[in-house]
Amino acid sequence: LLSGGMDSAVSLAEARAMGFDAHAISFDYGQRHRAELLAAARVAAALGAARHVVVNLDLRAFGGSALTADIDVPKDRIGHERSADEIPVTYVPARNTIFLSVALGYAETVGASDIFIGVNAIDFSGYPDCRPEFIAAFERMANLGTKMGAEGAGVRIHTPLVRMSKREIVERGVALGVDFGLTLTCYDPIMRGGRATACGHCDACLLRAQGFAAAGVRDAAS
Amino acid sequence: LLSGGMDSAVSLAEARAMGFDAHAISFDYGQRHRAELLAAARVAAALGAARHVVVNLDLRAFGGSALTADIDVPKDRIGHERSADEIPVTYVPARNTIFLSVALGYAETVGASDIFIGVNAIDFSGYPDCRPEFIAAFERMANLGTKMGAEGAGVRIHTPLVRMSKREIVERGVALGVDFGLTLTCYDPIMRGGRATACGHCDACLLRAQGFAAAGVRDAAS
Repeated sequence: LLSGGMDSAVSLAEARAMGFDAHAISFDYGQRHRAELLAAARVAAALGAARHVVVNLDLRAFGGSALTADIDVPKDRIGHERSADEIPVTYVPARNTIFLSVALGYAETVGASDIFIGVNAIDFSGYPDCRPEFIAAFERMANLGTKMGAEGAGVRIHTPLVRMSKREIVERGVALGVDFGLTLTCYDPIMRGGRATACGHCDACLLRAQGFAAAGVRDAAS
Repeated sequence: LLSGGMDSAVSLAEARAMGFDAHAISFDYGQRHRAELLAAARVAAALGAARHVVVNLDLRAFGGSALTADIDVPKDRIGHERSADEIPVTYVPARNTIFLSVALGYAETVGASDIFIGVNAIDFSGYPDCRPEFIAAFERMANLGTKMGAEGAGVRIHTPLVRMSKREIVERGVALGVDFGLTLTCYDPIMRGGRATACGHCDACLLRAQGFAAAGVRDAAS
C-alpha cells in the first residue's frame, strides 16, 4: 500500500530489498491531500514497482474525518497535552481495514501472498488500526476470507515500520536509497504553481520534521 | 449491506424486525449486474431504511472475477459436477471483506454498532468469505481496528441467513413482509425496455428459482 508519504515509501523499499516484485496500490478516497497520489506515482516509479494502480473509493459518501469531510485539520499541536489514547480527528473510520481489504483483493487477483503496509504503532498510537494486534487479526481474517487463504497458500501482512520511531524510519529510508524528495506526507497541502507543498503545521508535517531533525538528515521535500 | 438481491433484503427486514434503525449501504463496484443498485434503492425505501448510501469503489481497477472483468458468467450449472469446495469464477476476490470494511467505516461514522450482512454458508459454500469462521474473524478484527471497538462499545456482525437454505430464506422473507418483486438476484441481467430482467440461467438465478419452488411461493420478480 503506497500513499505517497514517507512511511509507505520506506515500506515499499523494504519489500523491494527483500526481493519482492511490487504491485503498488493507492486510493483516491476523497482525501483533501489528494496530491499525495502524484507523489505515490513518483515513488512507485523510482522504486521499480511492477505496476501501480489507483483505486477510486469515495469515502466522502459518508465522511466522518477531518481528512474526508469539512472538519479542520488540527495544526501546531506538538507539545500539546494530547493523551496517549486520544484518537485524532484525522482518523478516518476503518481506513486501514478498508485499504488492506482492497489490497487483499488486488493481491489475490495478481497472485501475491505478501502485503506490505507502512503502519507505525509508535507515532500513531492514537490510531487503533495501526496497532500490531489489529494487523494480526486482519491477517487471520484474510486467511479465512480468501481463495488463497482457503486453498492453503496463505496471506502475510508485513509491517516493517511498526516498531520504528520516525527517526529510525528516516535512517532506514536513507539506507535503502529512498528519495524522500519525491514523497508528500502532509494532511493539508498547499498548491503553489501546480505543485503541492506541505503545510508544515499539521501532525503529519510536525512528526516528519521531528524525524528528520532527530536523524540529522535534511528533508529533500522541504 | 444491501445488494438489491433477495438475501440482503431479508437480512434488512430482520434488522428492522429486531427494532434497529437501518442505514443501508450498497456498492457500485463495476459489477456487470449494476442494475441491482436500483433494486437496492427500492428495497431500502420499502423496508423503511433511515438512509441509503451507494459507495463508488472501482474493483474493475484490478478485475479478477466474472462479475468485474470480461470473463463469462457460467450458465445452467445446476446438476453439474461442481465439487463442494470449488470456488466459482463469480467469486470476487475479497469482496465481502472489502464491503464489510467499508460498512464498518460507515457504521462508525453514524454511530452504529450492529452490521447486518446476508451471507449464506449453505448455498454459497464455495465462497470462503461467506463462512461463519470468516465472519467471526472479521468481527474480532473490527473490534481491534476501530475507535468504537477500541473505546469499548464494540461491533457486532449479524448474519441472520447464514445457516438458512434458500427455501428458508424465502419463507422468512414472506413472514417478514418482504416484497421479493422489488429484488434482483441475477449476476447477468438483461435490459428490456429500460428495466433489468433476470437471465434465469446463472447460478444466482437457478438457486433463487429452486428456493421459491421448494417454498411453494411464486416469485413476484419473475
